[in-house]
Amino acid sequence: MPQLRKDIITERWVIISDERKDRPREYVSEHKRAEDFFCPFCPGNESKTPPAIEEYPGADGTWSIRVVNNKYPVLVHGDDIGHDRDSLYESMNGIGEHEIIIENPSHDFSPYSADAASMAKIYQVAAGRLLALSKIEHLRYAMCFKNFKAGAGATLSHPHSQIIAMPIVPKTIWEELMGSKDYFDRRGECVYCSIIAEEAMRKERVITENKTMIAISPYASITPFEVWILPKGHRSDFHAIDEALAADIGEIVCDVYRRLKAVIGEAPFNSFLHTSPFRFPLTSFGKYFHWHLEIEPKHGAIAGFELGSGFHINPYSPEECTRLLRDC
Amino acid sequence: MPQLRKDIITERWVIISDERKDRPREYVSEHKRAEDFFCPFCPGNESKTPPAIEEYPGADGTWSIRVVNNKYPVLVHGDDIGHDRDSLYESMNGIGEHEIIIENPSHDFSPYSADAASMAKIYQVAAGRLLALSKIEHLRYAMCFKNFKAGAGATLSHPHSQIIAMPIVPKTIWEELMGSKDYFDRRGECVYCSIIAEEAMRKERVITENKTMIAISPYASITPFEVWILPKGHRSDFHAIDEALAADIGEIVCDVYRRLKAVIGEAPFNSFLHTSPFRFPLTSFGKYFHWHLEIEPKHGAIAGFELGSGFHINPYSPEECTRLLRDC
Repeated sequence: MPQLRKDIITERWVIISDERKDRPREYVSEHKRAEDFFCPFCPGNESKTPPAIEEYPGADGTWSIRVVNNKYPVLVHGDDIGHDRDSLYESMNGIGEHEIIIENPSHDFSPYSADAASMAKIYQVAAGRLLALSKIEHLRYAMCFKNFKAGAGATLSHPHSQIIAMPIVPKTIWEELMGSKDYFDRRGECVYCSIIAEEAMRKERVITENKTMIAISPYASITPFEVWILPKGHRSDFHAIDEALAADIGEIVCDVYRRLKAVIGEAPFNSFLHTSPFRFPLTSFGKYFHWHLEIEPKHGAIAGFELGSGFHINPYSPEECTRLLRDC
Repeated sequence: MPQLRKDIITERWVIISDERKDRPREYVSEHKRAEDFFCPFCPGNESKTPPAIEEYPGADGTWSIRVVNNKYPVLVHGDDIGHDRDSLYESMNGIGEHEIIIENPSHDFSPYSADAASMAKIYQVAAGRLLALSKIEHLRYAMCFKNFKAGAGATLSHPHSQIIAMPIVPKTIWEELMGSKDYFDRRGECVYCSIIAEEAMRKERVITENKTMIAISPYASITPFEVWILPKGHRSDFHAIDEALAADIGEIVCDVYRRLKAVIGEAPFNSFLHTSPFRFPLTSFGKYFHWHLEIEPKHGAIAGFELGSGFHINPYSPEECTRLLRDC
């Protein structure tokens, strides 16, 4: 019997249905590397990207991490918001920032085999960029995310993360904020703190943990092997992490990727950092929102039903996924 | 300059950014037909599907349209909802119905070259199924949708639509209902009727129309060549269509697919029918919700940013798409 589970924060329902695993598939998908592809992120090709915003020294006089503006930005630099709500419709100019964190000089660097120190450094650089972007007057939010492999929507395979800073809080984050606020107003505590306490007690969805961080399979996982990584203590702003916490983040993230690799191979994934909106001292988000990292390995295409309904269908229960990831 | 546009019904923002069209892509995707694939929907293979719920006669003593239960259902037949909200989390049993409308005996029947009468008949059959499902006590909604080609998530290429009936109203529909209700309460009219009036006046996003139906490119299209097809008069329940309206639906849908084919070829797409929840006489949805068909041609993968933010990035403006579809 399939089960419907509700994400208590966003009220998004998920169908956990392992009966769909065996259905026949007429198609197999393949992603091929286009011939003669030139990688603008490899060392030696620095002139093919916009100038570096930040560049950290690496071995042999080269760089270890570079931050550049995206040459094909989703939102563009500027300060004229141009908010138009005169007609039936509402629009704004597409103002914002779109940065790329080139995570390593090696084209074939993989999060699945990264070392904790390199990973920690990437998160520290991301935190620094979020802090810098949070000071831009007309921006309200920055989403830091990663598409790994073509199957997850990556157009370039050289390891990189992206940060898109924007003049509004995106819908999914707003839903989490409002869900967290609602829970806080009813129960007087952070919903993520409640989830961490519940999971630590039940144990069946805890994948791994270290001194300050915990990795769980969320109760209403939208995809097989979805992982949430959260600080155990209540922290709302990712950009406020210090070096010690970054080290723990690097360690647990590497641990999670190693486990994923052992169970599902180097699968394509998307990961997103969910943190508080900017200008936090002027808001109440700090009380009830809890930053976390979400990792969603790709499993098949998102088809009409998911797109049209907002329901996700997940053929593997989070408890089964946790068991596999824990015992590997 | 990219533009941010708000869907006034769901408050979902879209980034219209044609500057992203030219970025380099390292990968090309391919979908291949698996070898030795056996089609359970082709004539002669009727014993490979569950027994027909409905079967309409075709030429030569065969059938023209068959409705069967999905052999691998997302939700299963039953009446024990098993609603559990005792712990921190909330769940229900995965109760519902999952039906397949096999639209044509021909494996290669394509909506892109269908005739209006065949298409009208498919919509009439779907309306009949929605009406039948609406009478099942514990069901609240049925989503009728179609995934065309592997690139849109289809696992079988034989032309078919699916209906998933469920015990709750799905999130995206609920957001549309609440957005429509809010607009109605503020303005005293249906938001879709307002949109139709606005578009009929402006003309720049009207693709085609006939006596009773209109096809538009929505102002905040989430994908290039997204099309909404709506009845011009206010109608909230798709299952109430009569034969005359079905004929007009068949005509405009074929017209839209022919135009899409001329401009973007036989592209993969998802389509969804958005109609009112069940047990309409007991609710107020009829006043402010307006059924419509949404067609979303596939354009690239939905990647991390879209998934993580709820923002969609659309590299072609709906006005440009309308012009191409109108002039073809």
